[in-house]
Amino acid sequence: MELVNIRDLYRNKEQYLEQTVTIGGWVRSIRSSKNFGFIVVNDGTFFEPLQIVYHDALENFAAVEKLNVGAAVIVTGKLVATPQAKQPFEIQAEEVVIEGESAPDYPLQKKRHTFEYLRTISHLRPRTNTFEAVFRVRSLIAYAIHKFFQERDFVYVHTPLITGSDCEGAGEMFRVTTLDMDNLPRTEEGKVDFSKDFFGKSTNLTVSGQLNGETYAMAFKNIYTFGPTFRAENSNTTRHAAEFWMIEPEIAFADLNDDMILAESMLKYIIRYVLENAPEEMQFFNNFVDKGLIDRLTHVAESEFARVTYTEAIEILEKHNDKFDYKVSWGADLQTEHERYLTEEIFKRPVFVTDYPKEIKAFYMKLNEDGKTVAAVDCLVPGIGEIIGGSQREDDYDKLLERIKELGLNEEDYKFYLDLRKYGSARHAGFGLGFERCVMYLTGMSNIRDVVPFPRTVGNCEL
Amino acid sequence: MELVNIRDLYRNKEQYLEQTVTIGGWVRSIRSSKNFGFIVVNDGTFFEPLQIVYHDALENFAAVEKLNVGAAVIVTGKLVATPQAKQPFEIQAEEVVIEGESAPDYPLQKKRHTFEYLRTISHLRPRTNTFEAVFRVRSLIAYAIHKFFQERDFVYVHTPLITGSDCEGAGEMFRVTTLDMDNLPRTEEGKVDFSKDFFGKSTNLTVSGQLNGETYAMAFKNIYTFGPTFRAENSNTTRHAAEFWMIEPEIAFADLNDDMILAESMLKYIIRYVLENAPEEMQFFNNFVDKGLIDRLTHVAESEFARVTYTEAIEILEKHNDKFDYKVSWGADLQTEHERYLTEEIFKRPVFVTDYPKEIKAFYMKLNEDGKTVAAVDCLVPGIGEIIGGSQREDDYDKLLERIKELGLNEEDYKFYLDLRKYGSARHAGFGLGFERCVMYLTGMSNIRDVVPFPRTVGNCEL
Repeated sequence: MELVNIRDLYRNKEQYLEQTVTIGGWVRSIRSSKNFGFIVVNDGTFFEPLQIVYHDALENFAAVEKLNVGAAVIVTGKLVATPQAKQPFEIQAEEVVIEGESAPDYPLQKKRHTFEYLRTISHLRPRTNTFEAVFRVRSLIAYAIHKFFQERDFVYVHTPLITGSDCEGAGEMFRVTTLDMDNLPRTEEGKVDFSKDFFGKSTNLTVSGQLNGETYAMAFKNIYTFGPTFRAENSNTTRHAAEFWMIEPEIAFADLNDDMILAESMLKYIIRYVLENAPEEMQFFNNFVDKGLIDRLTHVAESEFARVTYTEAIEILEKHNDKFDYKVSWGADLQTEHERYLTEEIFKRPVFVTDYPKEIKAFYMKLNEDGKTVAAVDCLVPGIGEIIGGSQREDDYDKLLERIKELGLNEEDYKFYLDLRKYGSARHAGFGLGFERCVMYLTGMSNIRDVVPFPRTVGNCEL
Repeated sequence: MELVNIRDLYRNKEQYLEQTVTIGGWVRSIRSSKNFGFIVVNDGTFFEPLQIVYHDALENFAAVEKLNVGAAVIVTGKLVATPQAKQPFEIQAEEVVIEGESAPDYPLQKKRHTFEYLRTISHLRPRTNTFEAVFRVRSLIAYAIHKFFQERDFVYVHTPLITGSDCEGAGEMFRVTTLDMDNLPRTEEGKVDFSKDFFGKSTNLTVSGQLNGETYAMAFKNIYTFGPTFRAENSNTTRHAAEFWMIEPEIAFADLNDDMILAESMLKYIIRYVLENAPEEMQFFNNFVDKGLIDRLTHVAESEFARVTYTEAIEILEKHNDKFDYKVSWGADLQTEHERYLTEEIFKRPVFVTDYPKEIKAFYMKLNEDGKTVAAVDCLVPGIGEIIGGSQREDDYDKLLERIKELGLNEEDYKFYLDLRKYGSARHAGFGLGFERCVMYLTGMSNIRDVVPFPRTVGNCEL
């Protein structure tokens, strides 16, 4: 069918005005008078809907009049300017084909539904204004990320989802198995015999693609991953999901400074891309979801990010310990309240905090010369706190091996990782951006369940 | 560090010639004479390496001379044209900083290694010519797919990986669980009690995002998915992996014809993008992996794809039954040998085969008026057979429900899917492209293990 997207009508108005066009979409609202009526139609390609005027000259006027919200229609008619009205134009219908009716119990009537209710109908909620906006912006952010890295010749690497090792030691994992749970094979010692499992061993869902990503950075110099990761944490918060997407770039011949430059450019690029390509959606969020959003994002895109070491940050924060639930002191991890205070109250812009105590960071981070801190960095942004965590990686074979042993990790599991330090080791760094957190940040949505199409959280795996 | 990518030197030669530049990369080969030598360096940003000339004027000449293949170096020097040589230019080194040496047992010496051997060192193989080419092209194909759909305003949807239902009924699935395998909770009847599992029920890894994708197409009109899918099939072939990526677009107010137009444009777009953006890699594949590749792809990009119904195809193939291991007859599924015969011998170009018997296709495909066939389509291409499978979906509530019951599927599992036919049903169609199969097709690589960074197959889950 030769249908025009409503997006094209809005974006290339001049081309279509006074022309006969055909659009297909879903009824958002309908009202009728004696011998004419209005249908507001959205086809999902553009945030603003389109008004259709129809008259009793239509063959199927009676049927059209009775349409319910949600019905699918294909409308042909002339696109005419409406200089007196709020909307720029409308279609004067010559034909309204009813593609699919909408049953009277349609769960999305023209009233405001709560986000909680809409979560129970995740297959229908993208038909509402808020979720149409969220999921289009989510799509645009994903594309902006690919575009940013590809324009810089980064290689996109699909790191594996099913993994044989808990490499980061980062929290609880989901087991992946094809063993018959009702009839588990046992070893002579009576343990479950995972050598009989699909992969011949015990396997889990990945918590990070970083270590695999590093192997590719040591071949391609600059790479990024963008894929799903999993955490089996039993935490029911507005910021945690069991399944989420991560972006993990890794750059070789690069240090922590290069890493910060990359993170800052990427965030600014994404913000600009979304403001430019989804102005209607962003205005909607600014008006109805998070007042001040656009100003805040514009400010971030235009600020030079501040930089402070962890040690300096602690000194600053200690002066304000009366304001915090958790008092800060050197050696302790920063809580969200501290992070937000730093970025919102002290620096009033995004800030990179660097060089954390090695005890509170992962084994693979590069030890600084002081022997106490590592070349880690967190990027904190107003309104949210930490959005990115990264580090320069330990590239010295002996130091890395020592740290692996110190922490009681299994050396054999990290042989491939040590190989990278044995054969042409190069300084390198990278960071992780939680994609959903990024979507929340850019839309102002405050619950992760509302930025994932079909969220997976503890006790919840619908559709 | 201010390093120049070797890609930039090649692509913007004029800007760098006679200038002093600094590059960082890994030694591919080295040879030395009495008081000078050559290092061939690759930095992973470009398929062609760069030659470095060094002299005994270097402070660390003795150390440089002894470098092993695989070592990481940072080289500063003037880029000079070499009109007499094969390569367009070289660097006359003023400084060679040894970033990381390469141990003498480096597994990638300058000789030809078999693909089988390289599979055992998946963390190092992207440092070889073949795999550098494969994985850069893989990255470019992924981006081309996003670009194609985003330029057409399709919304990218992340459908879930962990799922509570086996919706397509498509083969064996991996179970996802956090239950303690050594101590499984039991119901009163003695069965494993999955209500105690993380999601409160039995869950698996998805085999397709299509049904979820359809819910979004009925909101956004045009959407695509691009994410991992899983099959726990115990098949050890060159074409099957347990974990692979799929692209599944779905278009509303669209029929099978629109679906074919979309598939054809997408394939041509990807081919053109890769030929344009990776000419060196494609030439390499053409020379060393699959002679005739470039001609074949160019032909596909320039052909109008043929179209034939399944019934017509069977009539054609029956005349050649003497050539096939499996004889064809109406009602049987096409084997790869038949598919290849059709596209290579009969049509000599890509061909869409449409309207298959309903018995050999999925429940959700739209029943044709003949009551015997469904609006399914497979796209067959020379050299490979089926690369895309799609269909128009059944959009009639009653017919879909009947089919669900006929096949003994659980109606309750499909309530959300039936809702799409109850509230504003619109004709819609979509297809699935196996990403790895697409990468194999475009590179000429013949084993799926060689186009996945870290392949997962039965008995194999390394790194």
